[in-house]
Amino acid sequence: MNFKNIKRSIISVSDKSNLKIILPILKKFNVQIISSGGTFKKIKSMGYKCIEVSDYTGFSQMLDGRVKTLHHKIYAGILNIRKNRKHKEDLKIKKISNIDLVIVDLYPFENKLNKNVKYNKLIEYIDVGGPALIRAAAKNFNDVTVISDVVDYKLLTKELLVNKGSTSIEFRKKMSAKAFGLTAHYDSVIAGWMNNNLNIKFPKNISIHGKLVEKLRYGENPHQDGSFYKIENNLGIKQLHGKNLSYNNYNDIYSALTILKYLKKNQGTVIIKHANPCGVSSEKNKIISFKNSLACDPVSAFGGVVAINSSISKNLALELKKIFFEVIIAKGFENDLLKILKEKKNVRIIDSSTFVLKNKKNYLFLGNSFLTQDTNEIIFNKKLKIVTKKKPTKNQLESLKFAFHICKFVKSNAIVLSNAKSTIGIGSGQPNRLDSSKIACDKALKFLPSKIKNSVAASDAFFPFADGIEELIKLGVSAIIQPGGSVNDKEVIKAADNAGVVMVFTETRHFKH
Amino acid sequence: MNFKNIKRSIISVSDKSNLKIILPILKKFNVQIISSGGTFKKIKSMGYKCIEVSDYTGFSQMLDGRVKTLHHKIYAGILNIRKNRKHKEDLKIKKISNIDLVIVDLYPFENKLNKNVKYNKLIEYIDVGGPALIRAAAKNFNDVTVISDVVDYKLLTKELLVNKGSTSIEFRKKMSAKAFGLTAHYDSVIAGWMNNNLNIKFPKNISIHGKLVEKLRYGENPHQDGSFYKIENNLGIKQLHGKNLSYNNYNDIYSALTILKYLKKNQGTVIIKHANPCGVSSEKNKIISFKNSLACDPVSAFGGVVAINSSISKNLALELKKIFFEVIIAKGFENDLLKILKEKKNVRIIDSSTFVLKNKKNYLFLGNSFLTQDTNEIIFNKKLKIVTKKKPTKNQLESLKFAFHICKFVKSNAIVLSNAKSTIGIGSGQPNRLDSSKIACDKALKFLPSKIKNSVAASDAFFPFADGIEELIKLGVSAIIQPGGSVNDKEVIKAADNAGVVMVFTETRHFKH
Repeated sequence: MNFKNIKRSIISVSDKSNLKIILPILKKFNVQIISSGGTFKKIKSMGYKCIEVSDYTGFSQMLDGRVKTLHHKIYAGILNIRKNRKHKEDLKIKKISNIDLVIVDLYPFENKLNKNVKYNKLIEYIDVGGPALIRAAAKNFNDVTVISDVVDYKLLTKELLVNKGSTSIEFRKKMSAKAFGLTAHYDSVIAGWMNNNLNIKFPKNISIHGKLVEKLRYGENPHQDGSFYKIENNLGIKQLHGKNLSYNNYNDIYSALTILKYLKKNQGTVIIKHANPCGVSSEKNKIISFKNSLACDPVSAFGGVVAINSSISKNLALELKKIFFEVIIAKGFENDLLKILKEKKNVRIIDSSTFVLKNKKNYLFLGNSFLTQDTNEIIFNKKLKIVTKKKPTKNQLESLKFAFHICKFVKSNAIVLSNAKSTIGIGSGQPNRLDSSKIACDKALKFLPSKIKNSVAASDAFFPFADGIEELIKLGVSAIIQPGGSVNDKEVIKAADNAGVVMVFTETRHFKH
Repeated sequence: MNFKNIKRSIISVSDKSNLKIILPILKKFNVQIISSGGTFKKIKSMGYKCIEVSDYTGFSQMLDGRVKTLHHKIYAGILNIRKNRKHKEDLKIKKISNIDLVIVDLYPFENKLNKNVKYNKLIEYIDVGGPALIRAAAKNFNDVTVISDVVDYKLLTKELLVNKGSTSIEFRKKMSAKAFGLTAHYDSVIAGWMNNNLNIKFPKNISIHGKLVEKLRYGENPHQDGSFYKIENNLGIKQLHGKNLSYNNYNDIYSALTILKYLKKNQGTVIIKHANPCGVSSEKNKIISFKNSLACDPVSAFGGVVAINSSISKNLALELKKIFFEVIIAKGFENDLLKILKEKKNVRIIDSSTFVLKNKKNYLFLGNSFLTQDTNEIIFNKKLKIVTKKKPTKNQLESLKFAFHICKFVKSNAIVLSNAKSTIGIGSGQPNRLDSSKIACDKALKFLPSKIKNSVAASDAFFPFADGIEELIKLGVSAIIQPGGSVNDKEVIKAADNAGVVMVFTETRHFKH
């Protein structure tokens, strides 16, 4: 066993409210405390003994505190290897004492960044002394204990009590790993901020940092352990009711909210199954919107995630109650309506009122590597081009835009059939476009044959051949929207013209995998 | 404009081979150099003037170099705000001079980690002084230039030449952002190593770090910027021929190699389209294996990614040449065979001989947050349970295992039909299991009706109702493998028994989204 007795500590913290947890135990074991500035004053005011760091080093603080603890006497006291005779000798010659415990939290850079503190002010919140102290102690975990998180004050107290003023190597190692996790996170936030300001999208070194929100019951499957981390402090989703969210719930909820974000404000419904939409409607009337999104594939909707882009009305709550959903998401639930929904078995209820999608980049992990790219923000980046003899009516055009819009969120190859602003058939995740077309058509024929008249179709990428659109024409769609750009465009347009069907090119592709 | 003249520098580098790039320019502009240890000796030996850091600080190095530059005289020289009168006064009183340039590279921790240096030795490669210097200079970018990457020595030279011994604020900001990117990466590697050693899967703070491999022509779609980063140093894929890999190529290549990894060593073929397999075979004979994987869906295979789990033979090269693939992957290509394949238009050729999947965790990004979990390593974690009256033959069981195995890699809901060790129908990415069953059956009927006899089916999760398996029975499969666990299992088993079809439960689910 490798226990280390603690005789001397250095404490420097931004958040002083928890000092009361550790000071009594340090006193109990006669641990000397070195501190400076606000922490020093606070400790003294609480009636504990404490040495000012400048008294300890013999070097007065300067540059408004920019250089306080950055002193060799401190670092030699932390970094020396206790069992190394030469190190011992070095310390003796220079009259330097060991420092066995470092308790530091860092200037709250991320916090200030989130509060939109101005650029020049923000720089002052880049802590230099703190990370240096933490890292020195964390490197020398064999001899030194580092506490970098107020949450661990209680653990330290317990550890010292159990081991009579000492800490175990297991404890020190854990605290060391945490410390490096913290400094990595801290610098990742700073680097991200700087790169953003410089408009550098793809820096040489990139770090994506997350804070643990919760350990999940399991991952995508029961034999995989999983956890959920946040990048932004405010996730904007609040669970009001139900069992803990699962890995797949989180994935589906995110898929749903991403689609809603791009629908008209406070309008629309999305139903998600296996991270793909199986019904979307952007009708103004909440009930119609919900019913239409459900009607697109009522079989698949069972056990899915439904997201409403507004608050819930009583009538809607009663409709929602009729169907089994694993998760219901909306922008606010009045108490009495929440009561109605809570009567459903096994439902999780999420308030997404404050959901905002901040990230402008996404990441795709490939084991030893990852891809990163801009999030797919736009829908059309070119003017629409009508390529058939027949031109779309105003209503057709609106419906085409809606269908193409939804295509963006369906896994490729994606075909979306819509009537007005509701999907009536979604073909997703197929290795060729004809298959996706067939699936979408089969759905429409099965569940909504009455809505095929005047329906339109959208494709996330160009049709390489006419076969896909022939399938759609056979079904009876009145108009088709697609990026265009195939070597066979002529043939494809001809097929549309022959059938008297409108075709619109977007010149914008929306692959999603 | 904010140009800062450089009068004094501190240099401390592990990699000394590039000093020759910067020393002449520093001499040209009379920049004083402070250095220590190996860097000091090297600079002197090259005939340049240099002050030992201990002469500069008046404090001799101690603890075998663990404390060298961690001295207030150094930090005050770096951190003071030049335009701040009080800071100026502080420096004057303490007789401290400005340090305007910090050139530091860090102890090569990651490098040593990859070389499996022992735990206790590795700790010595955790740099404490280096990151502290870099971070101090990077914080004070308004006055100080920090160079943390040897790649930037040439940029610095150019900058000093153009600006006659000064650097611009733009340059200093860029170098500062890089510096924080480096320290974030550095500590992320250390934290990851420590957490691994402690078996901590989900630490409170997690950072995923990547090094830029290349900026891509674009992301998933042409209007998205994209880049490729590596986590592990050795990606194990080497492009031998063809245009640059695209975002979607990388995604597909990874999907292919992940499947091959789990096939029998040096055996098998995978064809990927839109990150899903559209044909897999694990036949021993290379030609049969390729032909079978192609036959599963020759329409979708067009323009796909094909991956061979072995080296290429001449016959195979000739077969591959007949089909248009965007990417061909194999474990080694002899020169004359490479020549044959290079004749194909627009093909990218990848050697995956050294591909190893190291990561034990994967990450799924959800905008403001991410999910992380164990990679899905196992195929079966329970003993197989035969639930029908009819028992599988040895061949059937082998084929069932293969089909279930492939299910793991197909996006949910996944249904895989196989004959022996080759897929004959893959149904992927559907919001309900019946739809996936139908798609798989349609494929088999369309492309390989002769192989339906004696075929088997696998499902990545349980059948919630009998409808899905009725579809498979109607097609004519002889056996079905699935996790089981539905409330309707009885009904499902009964349907199999009535049809005289074998059913095996795995009790292991393989969702993939």
